[in-house]
Amino acid sequence: MKKGIGYTSIGETFDDFILIKDATKGTASNGKAFLTLILRDATGEIEAKLWDVSKEDEELFVPEQIIKVTGDVNQFRGRAQLKIVSIRPVQVTDGVQISDFIEKAPVEKEILTEKLTEAIFEMENPTIQRIVRAFIKKYQEKLLVYPAASRNHHAYASGLAHHIVSMLQIARELHKLYPQINKDLLYAGIILHDIGKIKELSGIISTSYTLEGKLLGHIPIMVEEIGLMARDLKIEGEEVLILQHLVLSHHGKAEWGSPTPPLVREAELLHFIDLIDAKMNMLNSALNKVKPGEFTERLFAMDNRAFYKPTFEEN
Amino acid sequence: MKKGIGYTSIGETFDDFILIKDATKGTASNGKAFLTLILRDATGEIEAKLWDVSKEDEELFVPEQIIKVTGDVNQFRGRAQLKIVSIRPVQVTDGVQISDFIEKAPVEKEILTEKLTEAIFEMENPTIQRIVRAFIKKYQEKLLVYPAASRNHHAYASGLAHHIVSMLQIARELHKLYPQINKDLLYAGIILHDIGKIKELSGIISTSYTLEGKLLGHIPIMVEEIGLMARDLKIEGEEVLILQHLVLSHHGKAEWGSPTPPLVREAELLHFIDLIDAKMNMLNSALNKVKPGEFTERLFAMDNRAFYKPTFEEN
Amino acid sequence: MKKGIGYTSIGETFDDFILIKDATKGTASNGKAFLTLILRDATGEIEAKLWDVSKEDEELFVPEQIIKVTGDVNQFRGRAQLKIVSIRPVQVTDGVQISDFIEKAPVEKEILTEKLTEAIFEMENPTIQRIVRAFIKKYQEKLLVYPAASRNHHAYASGLAHHIVSMLQIARELHKLYPQINKDLLYAGIILHDIGKIKELSGIISTSYTLEGKLLGHIPIMVEEIGLMARDLKIEGEEVLILQHLVLSHHGKAEWGSPTPPLVREAELLHFIDLIDAKMNMLNSALNKVKPGEFTERLFAMDNRAFYKPTFEEN
Amino acid sequence: MKKGIGYTSIGETFDDFILIKDATKGTASNGKAFLTLILRDATGEIEAKLWDVSKEDEELFVPEQIIKVTGDVNQFRGRAQLKIVSIRPVQVTDGVQISDFIEKAPVEKEILTEKLTEAIFEMENPTIQRIVRAFIKKYQEKLLVYPAASRNHHAYASGLAHHIVSMLQIARELHKLYPQINKDLLYAGIILHDIGKIKELSGIISTSYTLEGKLLGHIPIMVEEIGLMARDLKIEGEEVLILQHLVLSHHGKAEWGSPTPPLVREAELLHFIDLIDAKMNMLNSALNKVKPGEFTERLFAMDNRAFYKPTFEEN
Amino acid sequence: MKKGIGYTSIGETFDDFILIKDATKGTASNGKAFLTLILRDATGEIEAKLWDVSKEDEELFVPEQIIKVTGDVNQFRGRAQLKIVSIRPVQVTDGVQISDFIEKAPVEKEILTEKLTEAIFEMENPTIQRIVRAFIKKYQEKLLVYPAASRNHHAYASGLAHHIVSMLQIARELHKLYPQINKDLLYAGIILHDIGKIKELSGIISTSYTLEGKLLGHIPIMVEEIGLMARDLKIEGEEVLILQHLVLSHHGKAEWGSPTPPLVREAELLHFIDLIDAKMNMLNSALNKVKPGEFTERLFAMDNRAFYKPTFEEN
Amino acid sequence: MKKGIGYTSIGETFDDFILIKDATKGTASNGKAFLTLILRDATGEIEAKLWDVSKEDEELFVPEQIIKVTGDVNQFRGRAQLKIVSIRPVQVTDGVQISDFIEKAPVEKEILTEKLTEAIFEMENPTIQRIVRAFIKKYQEKLLVYPAASRNHHAYASGLAHHIVSMLQIARELHKLYPQINKDLLYAGIILHDIGKIKELSGIISTSYTLEGKLLGHIPIMVEEIGLMARDLKIEGEEVLILQHLVLSHHGKAEWGSPTPPLVREAELLHFIDLIDAKMNMLNSALNKVKPGEFTERLFAMDNRAFYKPTFEEN
Repeated sequence: MKKGIGYTSIGETFDDFILIKDATKGTASNGKAFLTLILRDATGEIEAKLWDVSKEDEELFVPEQIIKVTGDVNQFRGRAQLKIVSIRPVQVTDGVQISDFIEKAPVEKEILTEKLTEAIFEMENPTIQRIVRAFIKKYQEKLLVYPAASRNHHAYASGLAHHIVSMLQIARELHKLYPQINKDLLYAGIILHDIGKIKELSGIISTSYTLEGKLLGHIPIMVEEIGLMARDLKIEGEEVLILQHLVLSHHGKAEWGSPTPPLVREAELLHFIDLIDAKMNMLNSALNKVKPGEFTERLFAMDNRAFYKPTFEEN
Repeated sequence: MKKGIGYTSIGETFDDFILIKDATKGTASNGKAFLTLILRDATGEIEAKLWDVSKEDEELFVPEQIIKVTGDVNQFRGRAQLKIVSIRPVQVTDGVQISDFIEKAPVEKEILTEKLTEAIFEMENPTIQRIVRAFIKKYQEKLLVYPAASRNHHAYASGLAHHIVSMLQIARELHKLYPQINKDLLYAGIILHDIGKIKELSGIISTSYTLEGKLLGHIPIMVEEIGLMARDLKIEGEEVLILQHLVLSHHGKAEWGSPTPPLVREAELLHFIDLIDAKMNMLNSALNKVKPGEFTERLFAMDNRAFYKPTFEEN
Repeated sequence: MKKGIGYTSIGETFDDFILIKDATKGTASNGKAFLTLILRDATGEIEAKLWDVSKEDEELFVPEQIIKVTGDVNQFRGRAQLKIVSIRPVQVTDGVQISDFIEKAPVEKEILTEKLTEAIFEMENPTIQRIVRAFIKKYQEKLLVYPAASRNHHAYASGLAHHIVSMLQIARELHKLYPQINKDLLYAGIILHDIGKIKELSGIISTSYTLEGKLLGHIPIMVEEIGLMARDLKIEGEEVLILQHLVLSHHGKAEWGSPTPPLVREAELLHFIDLIDAKMNMLNSALNKVKPGEFTERLFAMDNRAFYKPTFEEN
Repeated sequence: MKKGIGYTSIGETFDDFILIKDATKGTASNGKAFLTLILRDATGEIEAKLWDVSKEDEELFVPEQIIKVTGDVNQFRGRAQLKIVSIRPVQVTDGVQISDFIEKAPVEKEILTEKLTEAIFEMENPTIQRIVRAFIKKYQEKLLVYPAASRNHHAYASGLAHHIVSMLQIARELHKLYPQINKDLLYAGIILHDIGKIKELSGIISTSYTLEGKLLGHIPIMVEEIGLMARDLKIEGEEVLILQHLVLSHHGKAEWGSPTPPLVREAELLHFIDLIDAKMNMLNSALNKVKPGEFTERLFAMDNRAFYKPTFEEN
Repeated sequence: MKKGIGYTSIGETFDDFILIKDATKGTASNGKAFLTLILRDATGEIEAKLWDVSKEDEELFVPEQIIKVTGDVNQFRGRAQLKIVSIRPVQVTDGVQISDFIEKAPVEKEILTEKLTEAIFEMENPTIQRIVRAFIKKYQEKLLVYPAASRNHHAYASGLAHHIVSMLQIARELHKLYPQINKDLLYAGIILHDIGKIKELSGIISTSYTLEGKLLGHIPIMVEEIGLMARDLKIEGEEVLILQHLVLSHHGKAEWGSPTPPLVREAELLHFIDLIDAKMNMLNSALNKVKPGEFTERLFAMDNRAFYKPTFEEN
Repeated sequence: MKKGIGYTSIGETFDDFILIKDATKGTASNGKAFLTLILRDATGEIEAKLWDVSKEDEELFVPEQIIKVTGDVNQFRGRAQLKIVSIRPVQVTDGVQISDFIEKAPVEKEILTEKLTEAIFEMENPTIQRIVRAFIKKYQEKLLVYPAASRNHHAYASGLAHHIVSMLQIARELHKLYPQINKDLLYAGIILHDIGKIKELSGIISTSYTLEGKLLGHIPIMVEEIGLMARDLKIEGEEVLILQHLVLSHHGKAEWGSPTPPLVREAELLHFIDLIDAKMNMLNSALNKVKPGEFTERLFAMDNRAFYKPTFEEN
């Protein structure tokens, strides 16, 4: 039974279709060329070596090419590596397509759209509502397919919208517990806080940083976008400034990319809701791959900690 | 109408009963003795100077004495100070008592007890349930009246139980959103995490640190308590270790008092739920005292930030 | 001979017109009201106490009122304090005005304007030139009178323009030494980098932070302004992005307020030219007030260092 | 003449019995399996590669197997590596045993026992003496064979007891110089401070961290143990609290694992005696391996410094 | 009975000779001049206020003047303050002298000299011995009377020599325990490490920093001195370099003033011996002033910690 | 056409003379010896592997040997590596010499000498002038050929003098802008600040740290040298102390190697001029190697940043 590369253990054989994410040519000590391939499907990725490659191989096995591969998963320098036994490019008759190999959010786009609409509908402050609605409209298409990051948390198709919708759910409950919270502000902050990533990141496959992403970053990009949108909508007033502040401060500290720390209640809360959802996403994903009584691999974005799954947990 | 010292502004007159929290004798430049009094009621506290005091005054105006005082609130070195016009000790006929002057949690003890019982009732793992139940029983009385801190967040009577019950509510909702969470562990961690404060802090009025609190701190105290309790209950197994880990790691980082960082999913979550409830408690309390368009005073425990209340907030 | 409060030493008598910058009422230990005044002229400021004040005094001696005062400069808790002997409000016949008491840049506005124009004239890239010219025009008036900070460096009228013009001069020479520098970019970065302060700071007298200044800060404000200006001018292209990057990164590090560090040669240089001119301004101002063989007072913005003036320096 | 792997230089041949500490299988670029072996004897350890291994080889050459090996010590990526020429498993007739290959403290167990007994005998406070005596008895066996760490200082059999006994000797002399020191407390702190490592570490060979070690760490483990022991012995009083504080604070700072810093004189001293003995142990061991005029390898646990042995030192 | 100002508690009366360490003139709210005096004897120091002073008083009561004073010790802003009842300058017939009021090392100069001589006598390396002997000779006089610091540890007459001699005693014992230590180097490092303080500090009374002390500091001063001395003695060889390194690195880290960290075994040890003796000196001095069951005042140079004296300590 | 190894891209062939900087022997997985060579010419360096080497090869291909080599530049683990096709040692008839392969400052020695002389000539303070002149004379030869560092900035022949001369030019212009600067001091500080590198570094080829460099560092070495020089010249006075301070403080902060921070105006400026020239040197060198629209490699000494060359730059 096929279970995906992310769930194939060392010592097992892998025999399935998979996507080439990256391919680099090298020269072996015997003088022959070889390819280092990064292969990925919706469950994870692995490095593979293809030895003694010909010019034709180099042209066939390139990024974004789907292949059919058979091989054994070995350990190399402490990491899994696929030893390729046979390899061929996909054929039309195989009936597979790139989208099959991209990890996707566990929630459908329709549900995500519905949840976003619901949140906007709940808002009472017309100014805040208009701005948020305008952004949803402007980025409608990309907002529903973009990942929330190039790696780490929600780094999959529709990850950005999935992240927003989870955060909205937390916000709804916290508002019940602490009724002083301005729900409109908090909802708006959640929806807008990472939209700058649509300009910061290159897309869904092989996600990298754009020039604008590298030189400005998604936070200043979005502060500016809110300013431009307000002018287009002819909106003035403190709401615009506060929304910009929410976006600007949502990383919590200057060292973490927010030149101004949260100075409004909802900004402080936005920062923590963002942290919780990002961390739970990374943790659940890593713990899913281990059995009770085991530790996960070290999680770089969680201070390099390895987490333990107690033996009394259900697998 | 009486509104409490916490809501009396500079320039106003205060005329009411109030509790002496602290009294220190000094000598003025004219050679005469004076008393520096810290006065508090359920809404806040203020410094006051009583000039030219006699020996009798010194004996009358001591900590935990209730007084009737009239005076003007002035500004001195940037802080409010009460200029006393008249002062007298309380009389039996005044019909006031110490508990009137102590800030209390905004939720009744009965509700708090009920919420705690409900959480324990929901637990499915019998080992975890037994340990938690035993602690609730052991500290039943103090758990319902202790503050959660000597100052900063939930620093009022029943603050500890109020903090626990708020956190349980957040946990319940997060469990719905992230069903992978082990609810038993998370509830147990929340209920136990700060119980060590009952040994760390001296009590409800003029709360200070005990010797044990200073030399060990509530975290190591509670790790030990869980070990002792497990032995008393003849419980063995990984649950005990994991509960100790949850308590030990709940400050998140070595620099913040947790020699081991969270290495279990529920430990990570416990840390963030604790942070959110503490911060919301401090923020709401500070924002309650200012009007829309104003900044709060600087909040020491929130990195010394002053928070802004937008003008479009309801007062 | 009159020499200004900044040059009046402890033990000397001051007898001149001066501006009240701040006035706070207090109550002395004898129960009488007094005023703590902060007085300033173009050379510096001093604290003064006015004892036993009447209601009329309170109404007369308020911020932005010019007074004629006589008094002795004493030392109080290690700082200079003016002991007031006589005081009266200014009269029309005295012939003094507020602008006499405000410290001003040592260079005339006409010269500053000329230098700015000259720099823009030298630019070769039309896109960069258009953007810079548009900003100079937009903020023409304020740019020439605003200080560069509320305290620390160039905290005087026209300080912002003075700072820019000094930096341009350094840039011109560095360009000769390192001809690889893109002069247009560097000049533009220098002119634009602090213009956001016009929105961040309240004005020239009793300069404080605006709400926008507190919640966003001059750097994100200016990044947004460049985006808006480019759209107004219908300018597209990498120049806009690079100019935004120069402004965004000019504090050098996230901890110092630049969420993105300099990643373009001219951005790195801009950061250092800014530092040098700010530091020389503070140092020269402090060293001017001491004699050879003495240390300056501790300079907060220079890591609290006290600087030494060698004995072999001319006074 | 046999001199042990720790003293075999690059370019020399090694021909002796040695213990396999770790064995990992890999696949070479020619597709054949190979083993990466970590070999160790009492003087040090080295990596070795065994190429073209058969299934039988994989089963023969496993951790804790002693082998007879011949090979050359080469340099690979800046580190020594053994190129295996011949290899065979040990035979009964070879007359070697695992304990021959484990590094041991340079002091005999009998001496260590004697020194511990002597220190306890010197104590005058009966409470402290009883607690310490009870721990010595409880952990008698393991205390004399455990290492003090999995690597770094005293990472050899009986390392824990050796560390304790060296520290006691320093303490004895410091007490002569500073007679204000409470010798009982300091001795007790030294004996108890690291006993938690018996639960934190897995044992003597291939020492790793236990689950308890990872989730709690030796410091909280031992604070709890003292609490349990005091209850078993029906001891109450400040001595128990102070001993717990000594253990809790002996890493000196929160960042280093002590949530409470030393707040008792003997706690402060314990921290420094611990540091000195650990550092001298690492330094002497590293300097023993180099000649005068050379630097040691970089010592990770000493801030990655390489230490110099002056030319005027005797070799 | 006279017990010294350091042992006079709040509420007690002080009536004895004492030295004026510092005198500053101020102006009271009634317009009259007053003096803030810092008074000290061999046991400690206290602030005092002398109200309504005349011109004559100002001339009489100046630094380094001994006075006879009677007054009550009150508390002012949390610190002790002497309220002067009567005051007069010392008279010849009083038979007191400045040296009576200066705190001195608890060991006689003769003993200190003897111990230093003994250490040099033990040295075997003639080069090291010659350099050390030359420094002892060069600074013979000052070395025996200088303090080791202007405040904090060993801040008393002969403190520098006392510090050195205590450190030598620790070194002697550590050498017995770790015979690999080069005793000559360690002794030499101890004797030389702080001699630069003789140029860094102004002297014994009212110790302050010299210009050379402020601009260079005792470490670079002494590195240079060793270079000059070696040239004068026509000594070349690695010993000179190593001795300079020991002095240069003895603060342990760049942040603490050693641009190069210890890279020689004896340098590492010197750093720790220095720390231990400095800390024990401060701790013992602070603990001497409190009773069992009390905490000391906060010790600034010990990370602002207050230390606890257990109740089971002898007073 | 020959363009040097620094400008040969991956995929290109290199065929030219080049210098062996370093050669290390290894053993391949087939058991045969190979050499890892570091090759360099005036434009850069590259790693190369020479497989299956004989004893003769090992003797021929050693550091500082010039070779004629042909090979292809491949990518290996993300870095360029030369795959050697043919190799032979240089012959006399080839007419090349070591100096051809060493990177040199872009300014001739004669110009550098002239600029140094000019700066000294401008000095007005005879004491400062004499000291500087004496150092120029003492180190005349090495000063003109030494690099300013073993890697990072100005790491080429005559780099030290080139760095000094560039800094002098910046100083001259800053003096015009800020006439309060003491030009003599600043010039002297610039010329002397890094002369200690002549003792800290081993030379021009394969530059490494000397023992003195490792144990003291160029800053303390130069502070001592100034002291010795002043004594030789029989110069006393504050100038010597201030020059030592300038050298001592020029790294700006204790963490960066200056135990005393700048406390004199010219010391502060020296630190910044040093930084600017070092950074511009590294930046220009890295940007020269990339095309508009590209990022440089990561620059370790610039906080590991990769810098962008805008598309509107000329190549």
